[in-house]
Amino acid sequence: MAVRSRLTPEREAELYEAVLDLLREVGYDALTMDAVAARTRSSKATLYRQWGSKPELVARALRHNKPVSLAEIDTGSLRGDFDAILANSDDCQMEKDSALMRGLAHAVHDNPELLQALRELLVEPEMTGLDEVLQRAVRRGEIRADNPALKLVPHMLIGAFIARPLIEDQPVDSAFLRSYIDAVVLPSLGA
Amino acid sequence: MAVRSRLTPEREAELYEAVLDLLREVGYDALTMDAVAARTRSSKATLYRQWGSKPELVARALRHNKPVSLAEIDTGSLRGDFDAILANSDDCQMEKDSALMRGLAHAVHDNPELLQALRELLVEPEMTGLDEVLQRAVRRGEIRADNPALKLVPHMLIGAFIARPLIEDQPVDSAFLRSYIDAVVLPSLGA
Repeated sequence: MAVRSRLTPEREAELYEAVLDLLREVGYDALTMDAVAARTRSSKATLYRQWGSKPELVARALRHNKPVSLAEIDTGSLRGDFDAILANSDDCQMEKDSALMRGLAHAVHDNPELLQALRELLVEPEMTGLDEVLQRAVRRGEIRADNPALKLVPHMLIGAFIARPLIEDQPVDSAFLRSYIDAVVLPSLGA
Repeated sequence: MAVRSRLTPEREAELYEAVLDLLREVGYDALTMDAVAARTRSSKATLYRQWGSKPELVARALRHNKPVSLAEIDTGSLRGDFDAILANSDDCQMEKDSALMRGLAHAVHDNPELLQALRELLVEPEMTGLDEVLQRAVRRGEIRADNPALKLVPHMLIGAFIARPLIEDQPVDSAFLRSYIDAVVLPSLGA
């Protein structure tokens, strides 16, 4: 990124924030490079030179939104690590993330290029980070190495984010996620 | 429904199937009553007289898609009940359901009327059916009545449906759901 970028980090952050705002307002399909250019007072040529395509720009913007690397979290216990992850996210941010996830669920299905970019830039790094947190718990003896739920933690967490507003008409907040981790994630891991 | 309907059950089923096909093809926002009328060779007036509004028509079509009542399933054990639920759904149908769920995740957020209709016609009856299955397991002593995961089973299952294609690029099928139930749902319930 540093090599091809001639934008300052501040300007880059500003652009990503505008992309995410547009994504929440109008959804992925209606988000155009024209709209991003207009909102950020930049030229479409700059946007394409910098990011190549709309899916990559959106995926980078989403990735920028997640500055905390999960892998860096290491409190000495799995429950402590989950607590630290929750402490790093405020409730308002979680509601925004939940809105983004809902907005992307369908777009991803119709746009293989977006799915690919999201997988490489967001899903894989997050999965790797989460996996490190879980593998440390395995090494500490908190979870059996052959527990089949180890590979299903992302599914459980995505369910919490998607289903909470749909079923209970409640926003996702850290209190709910903590109770979900205690009731579902840790017991299924046998931790 | 029987009172105001002058359609035969066959014709009604045909209409619902067309609505679901359109929903998978173009998504909720682009699905118009005009398109439904054209596809099914009926008049818009008939559609509105029969169903009142697009959200209600869509919710009824989705409900029609789920003819098996979960509450009727009673094999004598929780794992047996889940197996019976899976045996009632074929894999092709599950992939179609997963596509519908992705298509609706965002629409629901933008359309309070659709969310309301979906809650009344689909979510509440399914939740009630699932809850009966779970409460029978509580009465048999398989699950403690105060287990906090009892209220979170829908979240876990929705996570399986949404995350499987997103993370693993695999369709949801009964083999995956069985392994998810064994690894996540039953252990979190302590069953």
